[in-house]
Amino acid sequence: MRGFDEDLLMIPGPTFVPDSTLRVMSRQMINHRGKKFGEMLTECTENLKKVFRTKNDLFILTCSGTGAMEAAISNIIEDGDKILCPVYGKFSERFKLIVEAFGGKPIELPVEWGDIPQPELLEEALDREKNVKAVTITQNETSTGVRVPLEEISKVVKKHNALLVVDTISSMGGDYIPVDGLKIDLCVSGSQKCFSLPPGLAFISVSEEAWEVIRRTKRRAFYFSLPAYLESYKKNPPEQPYTPALTFYYALQNSLRLLLEEGLDNVISRHRKVAQATREAIKALELELFPKREENCSVTVTAVRIPNGVSDKDLREHMQKEYGILISGGQSKLKGKIFRIGHMGCVTDKEILTTIYALEQSLKKLGQRVEIGAGLEAAIKVFK
Amino acid sequence: MRGFDEDLLMIPGPTFVPDSTLRVMSRQMINHRGKKFGEMLTECTENLKKVFRTKNDLFILTCSGTGAMEAAISNIIEDGDKILCPVYGKFSERFKLIVEAFGGKPIELPVEWGDIPQPELLEEALDREKNVKAVTITQNETSTGVRVPLEEISKVVKKHNALLVVDTISSMGGDYIPVDGLKIDLCVSGSQKCFSLPPGLAFISVSEEAWEVIRRTKRRAFYFSLPAYLESYKKNPPEQPYTPALTFYYALQNSLRLLLEEGLDNVISRHRKVAQATREAIKALELELFPKREENCSVTVTAVRIPNGVSDKDLREHMQKEYGILISGGQSKLKGKIFRIGHMGCVTDKEILTTIYALEQSLKKLGQRVEIGAGLEAAIKVFK
Repeated sequence: MRGFDEDLLMIPGPTFVPDSTLRVMSRQMINHRGKKFGEMLTECTENLKKVFRTKNDLFILTCSGTGAMEAAISNIIEDGDKILCPVYGKFSERFKLIVEAFGGKPIELPVEWGDIPQPELLEEALDREKNVKAVTITQNETSTGVRVPLEEISKVVKKHNALLVVDTISSMGGDYIPVDGLKIDLCVSGSQKCFSLPPGLAFISVSEEAWEVIRRTKRRAFYFSLPAYLESYKKNPPEQPYTPALTFYYALQNSLRLLLEEGLDNVISRHRKVAQATREAIKALELELFPKREENCSVTVTAVRIPNGVSDKDLREHMQKEYGILISGGQSKLKGKIFRIGHMGCVTDKEILTTIYALEQSLKKLGQRVEIGAGLEAAIKVFK
Repeated sequence: MRGFDEDLLMIPGPTFVPDSTLRVMSRQMINHRGKKFGEMLTECTENLKKVFRTKNDLFILTCSGTGAMEAAISNIIEDGDKILCPVYGKFSERFKLIVEAFGGKPIELPVEWGDIPQPELLEEALDREKNVKAVTITQNETSTGVRVPLEEISKVVKKHNALLVVDTISSMGGDYIPVDGLKIDLCVSGSQKCFSLPPGLAFISVSEEAWEVIRRTKRRAFYFSLPAYLESYKKNPPEQPYTPALTFYYALQNSLRLLLEEGLDNVISRHRKVAQATREAIKALELELFPKREENCSVTVTAVRIPNGVSDKDLREHMQKEYGILISGGQSKLKGKIFRIGHMGCVTDKEILTTIYALEQSLKKLGQRVEIGAGLEAAIKVFK
């Protein structure tokens, strides 16, 4: 059953945006080089640092998350610089492609999709290759639904004096990723995931070690030149080097206040809970989680193998047409093989339950043997 | 006299955004890889081509205008490539800086600020230098208030088989710039100027000659890789390679409909009229236009010399505090020497008159000999 409204977005970004944030985006423009914007920029930057749990510099860029990934790479490499890139999905692979595009030499470490890169694999590669400038990790690989524990990886990378570059685009805010505690040198995230904002802003934190490298690197960067952002932020009032997307700052300011009001730890607990409920429902429906080990499952997106006898396309179309609920299919080599439920941002038990309900009904309708109610029951048990 | 509301932005971008556009930005997110977004992307792209008066490919990027300037350069150059960059203000200079950042060799042609680059200057340089890959022109130099006629320049550039790269960030939509008629190979613009949108989107058109160069160039571009945008746009439904700023597409769709409804030629006439009225008012107040020749004055921003005995800062602060009207000061080496009135986007006679009124009163208050009403009278004569 569905009404007139937009679909409920249960895809791994963009997520649906809460009403109060949607409304502030109707505000009129202000001068982007004035005091009022300077105050807003300062508040947003300081609150983002709380979410990142960092004292490092942090910048807000007007671009998609990919732009911030590019900023992390293009500011630290020169031609031929070696960057270690474990590849275990579409987004970890993107780091490798960016390194190539900017003249670096990516050392690719292929990992089975659904699995995570082990610290031993990195250690071996770092011992073998000399002068690796940085290691790239996608902490939450949206394309396969895995999250990568960073504690051991960070130790290995730091032991080899390389920079640790981490993509937390689809997890920062929803997962526990203490940037300073994990010694992440360049940590990037995006607005349209756990921050419950539209796409269009990206965030990047920069450690002192990263600045040392940036300062001695002849960068191929202008729009994404991190020193330009630093210089503008030091002005009075603080500014952005290039005209910022004002409307999204109104939204970011509101969204960060909402996050801090709920409490960062509470937000993370909520994400863990909805993820666990989703997984329990999937298992109760006798479907198979895609990640190799459940302990590596993401807290913001659940990837599930398409059962035999149903096409990915039919399942998603049925859920959208009949129930107005949008889930995602697989990307790249996982196309047609998995479906993905996004549960990030302002998602709660209610959206998970309606999604599981629609999933149960749709699978049944498409001829699967499904015990109607089993998924719901398993999810509710987690929420109780 | 001023009330509670935001200041009226009479700066050269961001401009104020009309109410109907502000309101559509409160719409909920949709799937950026679905049919609905594909339709919106197609409509926006096709309508932008009408504004650009081009049949070339045209792409919408999530970034400030500077991002599109970078895209125009980074997609066509390799190390050491020569690019001819006349420099006659802050934004024409930016092209030179981008060329440098991406490993090219800018051939700088300095022109007095307030003046425009003459075709003869370009011709001489193109004859002298061999293998110039492209010439960069900022059609509307926001920092000095001049517009550059492109007809002769285009002929000179084409005769020398170079690409013509034009920045129309602060003029496209408000000024008459027929991209195909002028044989512009890469034409860039931004959302927060004549399109009456918030900052955050930028536009770039790409000619077949530009594609030929792009195809054989080993680019340092990923987020701004134009072939990636082309490939995604060819999909069914059309897509963007990286998650687009959906909210701004809602706004762009509305804004382009408004522009076409008013009529592109009517919008340009309106811009010419408000520009002329502003200039006549300035002259009637015995102030001096900054551009060297009035025929080269921009139709979207008027730059005026600060009269003796008044500080730029005092004038702007007084207009803002007492009248809630924001105008701009000078940039870079023009700081403190000029003030600038932006008149682009949905600006009409009414905003010009209130601005002139506030200007007259403020100058008088700050001790200038001003004939109160002279500016208003001159402006009204133009509007009649």
